[in-house]
Amino acid sequence: MSNDSSARIVAELRAWIRDAAPGAQLPSSRRLVAEYAASPVTVQKALRRLVAEGLVESRPGVGSFVRAVRPARGPDFGWQTAALRGRRADLAKVAAPLQTPPPEAQALHAGYPGPDLLPERLVRAALGRAARGAAATSRPPAAGLAELRAWFATELADAAPARLSAVTPSDVIVAPGSQSALASIFRALAAPGQPLLIESPTYWGAIQAGRQAGVELVPVPSDAQGPDPAQVDRSFRETGARAFYAQPSFANPTGAHWSQQRGDEVLAVVRAHDAFLVEDDWAHDFGIDAEVLPLAARDDTGHVVYLRSLTKSVSPAIRVAAVIARGPARERILADRAAESMYVSGLLQQAAVEVVSDPGWRSHLRRLRGQLRERRDLLVAAVREHAPALTLDVVPPGGLHLWARLPDGVDADQLVRDCAADGVWVAAGDEWFPAEPPAPYLRLTYIGPEPSGYPAAAAVVERAVRRQSGQSG
Amino acid sequence: MSNDSSARIVAELRAWIRDAAPGAQLPSSRRLVAEYAASPVTVQKALRRLVAEGLVESRPGVGSFVRAVRPARGPDFGWQTAALRGRRADLAKVAAPLQTPPPEAQALHAGYPGPDLLPERLVRAALGRAARGAAATSRPPAAGLAELRAWFATELADAAPARLSAVTPSDVIVAPGSQSALASIFRALAAPGQPLLIESPTYWGAIQAGRQAGVELVPVPSDAQGPDPAQVDRSFRETGARAFYAQPSFANPTGAHWSQQRGDEVLAVVRAHDAFLVEDDWAHDFGIDAEVLPLAARDDTGHVVYLRSLTKSVSPAIRVAAVIARGPARERILADRAAESMYVSGLLQQAAVEVVSDPGWRSHLRRLRGQLRERRDLLVAAVREHAPALTLDVVPPGGLHLWARLPDGVDADQLVRDCAADGVWVAAGDEWFPAEPPAPYLRLTYIGPEPSGYPAAAAVVERAVRRQSGQSG
Repeated sequence: MSNDSSARIVAELRAWIRDAAPGAQLPSSRRLVAEYAASPVTVQKALRRLVAEGLVESRPGVGSFVRAVRPARGPDFGWQTAALRGRRADLAKVAAPLQTPPPEAQALHAGYPGPDLLPERLVRAALGRAARGAAATSRPPAAGLAELRAWFATELADAAPARLSAVTPSDVIVAPGSQSALASIFRALAAPGQPLLIESPTYWGAIQAGRQAGVELVPVPSDAQGPDPAQVDRSFRETGARAFYAQPSFANPTGAHWSQQRGDEVLAVVRAHDAFLVEDDWAHDFGIDAEVLPLAARDDTGHVVYLRSLTKSVSPAIRVAAVIARGPARERILADRAAESMYVSGLLQQAAVEVVSDPGWRSHLRRLRGQLRERRDLLVAAVREHAPALTLDVVPPGGLHLWARLPDGVDADQLVRDCAADGVWVAAGDEWFPAEPPAPYLRLTYIGPEPSGYPAAAAVVERAVRRQSGQSG
Repeated sequence: MSNDSSARIVAELRAWIRDAAPGAQLPSSRRLVAEYAASPVTVQKALRRLVAEGLVESRPGVGSFVRAVRPARGPDFGWQTAALRGRRADLAKVAAPLQTPPPEAQALHAGYPGPDLLPERLVRAALGRAARGAAATSRPPAAGLAELRAWFATELADAAPARLSAVTPSDVIVAPGSQSALASIFRALAAPGQPLLIESPTYWGAIQAGRQAGVELVPVPSDAQGPDPAQVDRSFRETGARAFYAQPSFANPTGAHWSQQRGDEVLAVVRAHDAFLVEDDWAHDFGIDAEVLPLAARDDTGHVVYLRSLTKSVSPAIRVAAVIARGPARERILADRAAESMYVSGLLQQAAVEVVSDPGWRSHLRRLRGQLRERRDLLVAAVREHAPALTLDVVPPGGLHLWARLPDGVDADQLVRDCAADGVWVAAGDEWFPAEPPAPYLRLTYIGPEPSGYPAAAAVVERAVRRQSGQSG
């Protein structure tokens, strides 16, 4: 709106007004033109800005004056407190993994792979083509572009044993990212106040989505092998829940990877309770030592609602995920998506399907696997050598994070602040627990920009732990 | 997955299997290779597909056989009926304005301007630049790109009278389209079961969002001048509602445009009840005979929650809208957005801000105004001349639609089907009423592709009306 010299005049007059008496007359336009060596147009623009800000009153033909009654403080929105009533849910404003550190910090807290781990060339080319094509100015169907839905269906069908009836493109709903999909799935499967089983610890975004949906989150403990099927069974029985949210492959944050047997056992429990397993296959593209074999591929009775996102592996700009569900559940999820956002940008869908259909996508994934293995191993080695106070229960066979237990009694939030002060950003484990955390944890990600800094970063964490333990650093 | 000849083999074998006895042996691979003049690889691919579909069983070294136990019908998802319990809300699967007509139909039902009304050149150029820039591979802040938030704030601030404290970029939240924004606003301002006042008739998407949020929608009748302030006051008093959803400028579907006095009166009522006015400024860029002066510009006490979308005026692919709110309400809406979708694709935000900051955007809007005027006038003339059975209470001074009353007793849904059979797609008014429609209406849009077809389309509607009235066509 304003060029540089008008902005400068505004800034200096603001300072002048701050010390002026209400009603005081401002220097005339002519004087301002001379003083600032600015054009009359520029001066007028500056004065209009001050009028718009309520600092100055203009009396045509007389001059400009400091407004007699100026708000001594900002407007009072206190009335909203009663209108809004109590908060429905404790929704975090900005979760730790979404926070942006200063550029010079070593970031071990984030959840999104940096540009060096993305198929950048494919992404830019696909977006460029989509910008020139029909998708740039048209509206796709509510459930998603046919071609993209077919790709998601084929990926899952190809993993299915022969004897099962495979999913089809009509079982697929495209959503603008997995967070939106989760919110819709939870709303569709459980009414407000109804119970929903959820792994603990688990992805903080799922906890947020559950709180927002107003469901009662029932934590089911999960370790490196996944949840105990007997415990899942007990929780279904005790609560009457009809759905269980889990990440069977490379769980965030623990890195747990269910064996095929464990998966079949949990699925049998889910079936026995006529319930849904919400399988969040968030790390499908991030296998390191193991492949992902979705549980959804072993179900053709509509018990598994499958969630698969491309945001983290293709690009954070291409917010595209798929929900694959069958039966009335699928209809209900689609109705919720339509009410929530109508459709997903066809441009992003078109770019997504072009990236994952490109032969370069497979070679990118192979390269990525090598990068992740190298970084994971570097971070594990750095933690073991330079942060012996941390316990790693498992070296994750896939995914993007280490889950490190802190010594009992350490205040994880304080630790996070201390590390940040020393230039290392880590995430306290508390956000990954749907209820009270049973012990202090840190989540450390190996997708940050500078693996060469891992040893020094681990040493910073170790020093911060020792500071709390009262030992000399 | 399959090339053409493999797909052909699959299709023909499927037909063969349909008539075959369970356990019957398929022709050998060698015979299939000869019969279809296909390569062994192609034949194997086809057989694998049939195995994956569960139609065929392969016994290595023996041959392929029609599976003995074939599902006689699709899988049974009946168990889900109990698990999902009753429906929470009556959510439409695909609303009438989102339905895709056959290409040869005259589409008067849609809600999205076609490519000829969009700034196509600007959109493609901005998307192309964004594809090459940082936004293609990075994640923007949760509340939106700073530059885009500043643009939205400036647009509203420039319309504000001098004496008010103007909105700032920190009051702006970017959402992936106005539907997502509405859902968040309703969830933030009213808990499930609480009342929410809503114009009647009004935008069907807002009705859907309200149902999805589980709030109790309280219809407030609204005519060509907008709602009666005394009625708004009475509805607030009777229900204890704390929010009123309205479209003060070129309302969808009625075209109503509140006078400044009407706006101030309604705002005074809202303030007197310590309530919120949710101002959906959906048609900001679609003024024809009048300009939009947002009510939000005349409020600095946090009573107006302002919604402004670019999806319809920039491109349906660029799903970007802004919520402008102040005080705790803004915090609550942002927390809901974060839980619902975390952030909006930075690529779309970057492209949006480049389009609206381009000097070509203003000239596009001027050209668009002329196009809309011409089309509106053509459609009004066509209806008046060729469909005298329809009553137009108002020629809308802006927006995209005519709202036509049908003779009492006409079944609007039947009319829609009859017109579609004659190649003309119109939308029955019922979807725009939060409760029972008081009379049958049609919504006719003048943004369809072929204005030259308006007279013939109007004649089709007239014939369909007369058919129901028992008069000769």
